[in-house]
Amino acid sequence: MEKKTLLTHCCDKPGLIAKITNICYKHQLNITYNSEFVDNTTGQFFMRTELEGYFNDTTLLADLKQALPEGAKYQLASAQRKRVVILVTKESHCLGDILMKNFDGSLDVDIAAVVGNYDHLQALTERFGIPFHCVSHDDLTRAQHDTQMLEVIEQYQPDYLVLAKYMRILSPDFVEHFPYRIINIHHSFLPAFIGAKPYHQAYERGVKIIGATAHFVTSNLDEGPIIKQDVIPVDHTSNAKDMAQAGRDVEKNVLSRALSKVLSDRVFVQGNKTIIL
Amino acid sequence: MEKKTLLTHCCDKPGLIAKITNICYKHQLNITYNSEFVDNTTGQFFMRTELEGYFNDTTLLADLKQALPEGAKYQLASAQRKRVVILVTKESHCLGDILMKNFDGSLDVDIAAVVGNYDHLQALTERFGIPFHCVSHDDLTRAQHDTQMLEVIEQYQPDYLVLAKYMRILSPDFVEHFPYRIINIHHSFLPAFIGAKPYHQAYERGVKIIGATAHFVTSNLDEGPIIKQDVIPVDHTSNAKDMAQAGRDVEKNVLSRALSKVLSDRVFVQGNKTIIL
Amino acid sequence: MEKKTLLTHCCDKPGLIAKITNICYKHQLNITYNSEFVDNTTGQFFMRTELEGYFNDTTLLADLKQALPEGAKYQLASAQRKRVVILVTKESHCLGDILMKNFDGSLDVDIAAVVGNYDHLQALTERFGIPFHCVSHDDLTRAQHDTQMLEVIEQYQPDYLVLAKYMRILSPDFVEHFPYRIINIHHSFLPAFIGAKPYHQAYERGVKIIGATAHFVTSNLDEGPIIKQDVIPVDHTSNAKDMAQAGRDVEKNVLSRALSKVLSDRVFVQGNKTIIL
Amino acid sequence: MEKKTLLTHCCDKPGLIAKITNICYKHQLNITYNSEFVDNTTGQFFMRTELEGYFNDTTLLADLKQALPEGAKYQLASAQRKRVVILVTKESHCLGDILMKNFDGSLDVDIAAVVGNYDHLQALTERFGIPFHCVSHDDLTRAQHDTQMLEVIEQYQPDYLVLAKYMRILSPDFVEHFPYRIINIHHSFLPAFIGAKPYHQAYERGVKIIGATAHFVTSNLDEGPIIKQDVIPVDHTSNAKDMAQAGRDVEKNVLSRALSKVLSDRVFVQGNKTIIL
Repeated sequence: MEKKTLLTHCCDKPGLIAKITNICYKHQLNITYNSEFVDNTTGQFFMRTELEGYFNDTTLLADLKQALPEGAKYQLASAQRKRVVILVTKESHCLGDILMKNFDGSLDVDIAAVVGNYDHLQALTERFGIPFHCVSHDDLTRAQHDTQMLEVIEQYQPDYLVLAKYMRILSPDFVEHFPYRIINIHHSFLPAFIGAKPYHQAYERGVKIIGATAHFVTSNLDEGPIIKQDVIPVDHTSNAKDMAQAGRDVEKNVLSRALSKVLSDRVFVQGNKTIIL
Repeated sequence: MEKKTLLTHCCDKPGLIAKITNICYKHQLNITYNSEFVDNTTGQFFMRTELEGYFNDTTLLADLKQALPEGAKYQLASAQRKRVVILVTKESHCLGDILMKNFDGSLDVDIAAVVGNYDHLQALTERFGIPFHCVSHDDLTRAQHDTQMLEVIEQYQPDYLVLAKYMRILSPDFVEHFPYRIINIHHSFLPAFIGAKPYHQAYERGVKIIGATAHFVTSNLDEGPIIKQDVIPVDHTSNAKDMAQAGRDVEKNVLSRALSKVLSDRVFVQGNKTIIL
Repeated sequence: MEKKTLLTHCCDKPGLIAKITNICYKHQLNITYNSEFVDNTTGQFFMRTELEGYFNDTTLLADLKQALPEGAKYQLASAQRKRVVILVTKESHCLGDILMKNFDGSLDVDIAAVVGNYDHLQALTERFGIPFHCVSHDDLTRAQHDTQMLEVIEQYQPDYLVLAKYMRILSPDFVEHFPYRIINIHHSFLPAFIGAKPYHQAYERGVKIIGATAHFVTSNLDEGPIIKQDVIPVDHTSNAKDMAQAGRDVEKNVLSRALSKVLSDRVFVQGNKTIIL
Repeated sequence: MEKKTLLTHCCDKPGLIAKITNICYKHQLNITYNSEFVDNTTGQFFMRTELEGYFNDTTLLADLKQALPEGAKYQLASAQRKRVVILVTKESHCLGDILMKNFDGSLDVDIAAVVGNYDHLQALTERFGIPFHCVSHDDLTRAQHDTQMLEVIEQYQPDYLVLAKYMRILSPDFVEHFPYRIINIHHSFLPAFIGAKPYHQAYERGVKIIGATAHFVTSNLDEGPIIKQDVIPVDHTSNAKDMAQAGRDVEKNVLSRALSKVLSDRVFVQGNKTIIL
């Protein structure tokens, strides 16, 4: 008995749920969890179906192809744990949380390597038996640095890249190698405080709540599809540094929860939005 | 074109989603929203299906009966707004919120009447053009009072009773007339602080968070299935009276949100729990 | 025995708390609640002192003047309830919440009048025995309309104006009449989604949290000092209209809480920020 | 220049703030942060004063003794980081969070040692260069085990003990060694679900929110003064195991925040409650 997850995304048509679940039933696959969503604004249908049984992928996908409308996307995701490479700079809290959650099994992921543009987090990473690569950006153009990063990363063939407080902007060329496969944590409640030093901006504006946003990276800075956001209250006693410190827990929690959704094949992207089933 | 909601609850079996959605498809009913849940602990299947089209209720229900396992419960709920009677004592905040939400259309419900064991809220209720009945409990046994309440209530044939800070305990006999059709707001985060004066209990215990719980009323006091809960932080500066005041917003918000779920046929009851689809 | 609140705001100097509390002690005034804050970035000192006793305002203020640094602001606020005028357009939820909270005593305020640019909320207001004025903006320039509004408002000599979903932009001239005395509720988590249709903007951006912001109105649209903010989670199932509906509870709760702080003389303004003691 | 924190707790009397701040002023100590609280129910006065300057502890404390009412408690806490010993069993998430926060400087504490009744967390602890002791409870009575624990712990002379998911009940004898110096994280929103398996209890009751509580340990199980609580929403899709997993983030966040308050001398205990200044 195997477990796989069927992900379907197509134009909405009457009878789609019946058609897809009929095919599963005919293949003697048991549906252990199912959820679907129709976006009435765009007329798009999304369905995520956890299946259990003996899979004949070829005939199952062929049956689906025949039943679904032209242009449908569908995919059988295996239950195998995903492989990620984590990019960092100097701050440890997001990396540390992922390492600890991987250690205790609450984030089921294969951390292939950690790559930093500084070596500050090398010792911490290696304590957990994970390879660390430092790719300094000193004396390099962005393009040169991104190329070197890419070489290091690609040897690990990751399913996803995780930017765990990686404080450099990636070039569009780099991003194109991993479409909707790079997850970033931004230290503000986007779209408030786009760009650099969001906590300083928040302090200047005198906000009473600060937040963090996990999103897919696209070539538009801080504009990619949002996966998860959360906030905490602050008040007049917090300066920008206090806010940054208070924000750390939110950042790491938001990133971990977003990762957990992505790694369990729950996140669809449509336009600039996510549908999470 | 009509809109109805099909609610299905039965033992889980392979192929149930396919069977039910096939029947809808065969009846040329369009599924505009669907959600289902399988409780793996109890092996129970729950499905809520919003349908649009021309309904032949008799043949549809007959087809379902044949397709579903023995003992299945299924029901076609009309999109008609539900009729409620609200029970109150002296406090106005929960009643007031329901009246205001009904006024602005954000809670789509037919408030048939308000019944109080005091007349404190008569003027407020009548300002909104809704009949108010005062059924004093003075000089009456609980059984006598409940009987009088029942007489007043039953003339309105309500779908649900809403206890909006009705501060008396209802007798099991009364409750039996409205199985899982009485919604109460309890002013604590149940099961903490069961019984009388929960804010005093909370103050005595020195908690840092207080809450409110909306639940169906059963014959076990404060033990019925929970529909919705929410909380707010408090600190050492709050005494019991401050907590009660701070709790009012939570109480009214929790009750309104619970009502909104119940009134849109989203709440299934299984054992002492709710499944909200 | 009277109760008053002393508000002090000046440059920070050593010994300020001692000086101020000594003066209160000398005047045989009992401090029932005291809080202070020093903003280290700007070197400003803020203190709010609730006093009980027999007040000789003249000598007390004279003693303070002598003790405090040049340019200090200090004020003895009476415990008398504040008088407000509420401005509205068509939406009732914020007005309704204030009316209900005033009715049950949880917002201790004298609502002198409600003024709308439409008459939609006249009947509701009058049910609570409060005068309503409709000042239509039809065929008027902004300046003309603001002048007419001002005439109506000024007859009530309000301490504060409350914009309870008043959907027009006030002219700088109008705002200057009420410096830091106009409280607005903006239906987004500022500074995200400044300007019109914030829920549409939020939907377009695909955010996972929406919010509301209560702030003082200055001549810079949506840029005045923030008093209170709160948020609720949303997801892909919410369209812009759903978000607006879900946002109503947050809007009304945030506005009421901000009002409660302002009306109890807890809010200092410094630059574009609030200090809430 | 040194920094110290003055903590004062006594019966409320008129003029206390003036007296204490006068003494500080006379000693040429600058107050950088001050907060006070009067509990009107019990008539107790609490004040926490952060001071900067050149301290003569003996004369300062003598002056305070003379000025404060009989029976006053007052204490000059040094700004030195506190020393803690952490007790664990098998679960790593709370220990891991403290280790990571200590690593990145966001929790300023000296972790003298970790002591477990199992050795599961030895390797993790030692990766961070911290001594680990395993004191197995096999074949020991509770009294014997507690005595062995005590011996190991006392060699480190800790200011506080932190129970980071230490899943054994400590004997009153053990607790008496560390009055209000043991901080525990309980995996429920106390007083709901006291005792063993709170997540199972929560699942059985069908709650919609779960929580965690950090509290001082007294000889009454789960009844000590609460320092910090927080919650997260759950729904019908969570079984007891899911709730336990979801609760981990809350547990670790609540414990870290409570520790942060205790370690910065902000927490007063009065009766069975905490006052946090």
